[in-house]
Amino acid sequence: MKRLHERGFYDRKTVYQLLDAAALCHVSYIIDDQPYCTPTLFWREGPRLYWHGSSASRMLRNLSDGEPVCLTVTHLDSLVLARSGFNHSADYRSVMAFGRARLVTNPEEKRRALVMMVDRFFPGRTAGLRPSTAQETKATAVVFMDIERASAKIRAKGVGDDENDYALPIYAERLPVHLLIGEPEACPRLMPTVTRPLQLAPYRQGRPLEAALLDAHADTFPRDSEDASNGS
Amino acid sequence: MKRLHERGFYDRKTVYQLLDAAALCHVSYIIDDQPYCTPTLFWREGPRLYWHGSSASRMLRNLSDGEPVCLTVTHLDSLVLARSGFNHSADYRSVMAFGRARLVTNPEEKRRALVMMVDRFFPGRTAGLRPSTAQETKATAVVFMDIERASAKIRAKGVGDDENDYALPIYAERLPVHLLIGEPEACPRLMPTVTRPLQLAPYRQGRPLEAALLDAHADTFPRDSEDASNGS
Repeated sequence: MKRLHERGFYDRKTVYQLLDAAALCHVSYIIDDQPYCTPTLFWREGPRLYWHGSSASRMLRNLSDGEPVCLTVTHLDSLVLARSGFNHSADYRSVMAFGRARLVTNPEEKRRALVMMVDRFFPGRTAGLRPSTAQETKATAVVFMDIERASAKIRAKGVGDDENDYALPIYAERLPVHLLIGEPEACPRLMPTVTRPLQLAPYRQGRPLEAALLDAHADTFPRDSEDASNGS
Repeated sequence: MKRLHERGFYDRKTVYQLLDAAALCHVSYIIDDQPYCTPTLFWREGPRLYWHGSSASRMLRNLSDGEPVCLTVTHLDSLVLARSGFNHSADYRSVMAFGRARLVTNPEEKRRALVMMVDRFFPGRTAGLRPSTAQETKATAVVFMDIERASAKIRAKGVGDDENDYALPIYAERLPVHLLIGEPEACPRLMPTVTRPLQLAPYRQGRPLEAALLDAHADTFPRDSEDASNGS
């Protein structure tokens, strides 16, 4: 993590919180001189980022030998309508994290990663699930990347016009956008006695997804989230 | 566009609609063997994708000579809680578009692109704005990429458990997420007589951003959206 501050945008606490507030990232990598940008679920544990996929996927077959990757998370917060075209913009918070992708090969580490892949989003959930089969474990590839450097970019100023332009009779606004949780849709084939576990209560309709994700991360990795809060 | 169907996932109509329903994309490119993944606003006109930024930005300085890029758009639709860890998933719709990035250098094309950069989101808006200065035009670099091939991936099935697992007493659900427009925040420094233009009515609180973006695209590029609807 020595180089985390290199680009000098934000501290580790900010970078970690922006990562932990997201379920989705975009991972960039190179195959035969062609860049690829793949969306995937991911999670952070300490300075390490994890994602997973089919063992047969082209991305994962090509990301096991320490290839350089860039993992980016973006929270879009608004569209900004200014008084000139030039000052039209958007509020957003993003992190670009750089490192080298490697497969999790150690069986115990892989077993643990497959738990965290679920529990990071839904704390404690794996304990109540049908256990994974050997075939499922084999069919799932887990990739990790130690963050070698990362930077955050945050724009949060809303309308920012040239000083002279504020006197013009032109409408300007900040148009916020929110990624919100909708109404949970229970599986129509639930067994009759089964109800929604209390542990899912943080995922309630109308709440920003990022708030629920931050709670879940703090529940599953309490020490880690302490680090993030302290910026240490 | 000959190769658009190459990966065979979806037709052009689907690819275009997924692109037009988004304001944000992630662009991947390579500098010195390192992949980068940058979030940016973008828009589509016909088979061409545009994005812009500061003429001084490292990305744009490096994306003017036909370098290969991958532009990805992702709509996250749900998190899926299954009865096994293996079947946990997410519903999403994404497009990966491949091509070569080039700077818009022709002055007339650039002038038009700087209009579309605003009007694609807010139809007709540029006509009422303070005109761009020569310095602003110079400071803005517009990049375009003709889509050489593209593919869409769509997962929309919610909970998909192994047939035997449905009999287990385990809770499962599809947890939808929605990117919604919030309450518009008028600039606090508006001139007293200025009110919100009717043309912004489609951007109303509680509406999915993607619906407003599709409307705006169809307004600004009527012929183009016809193409997308016909899949021709």
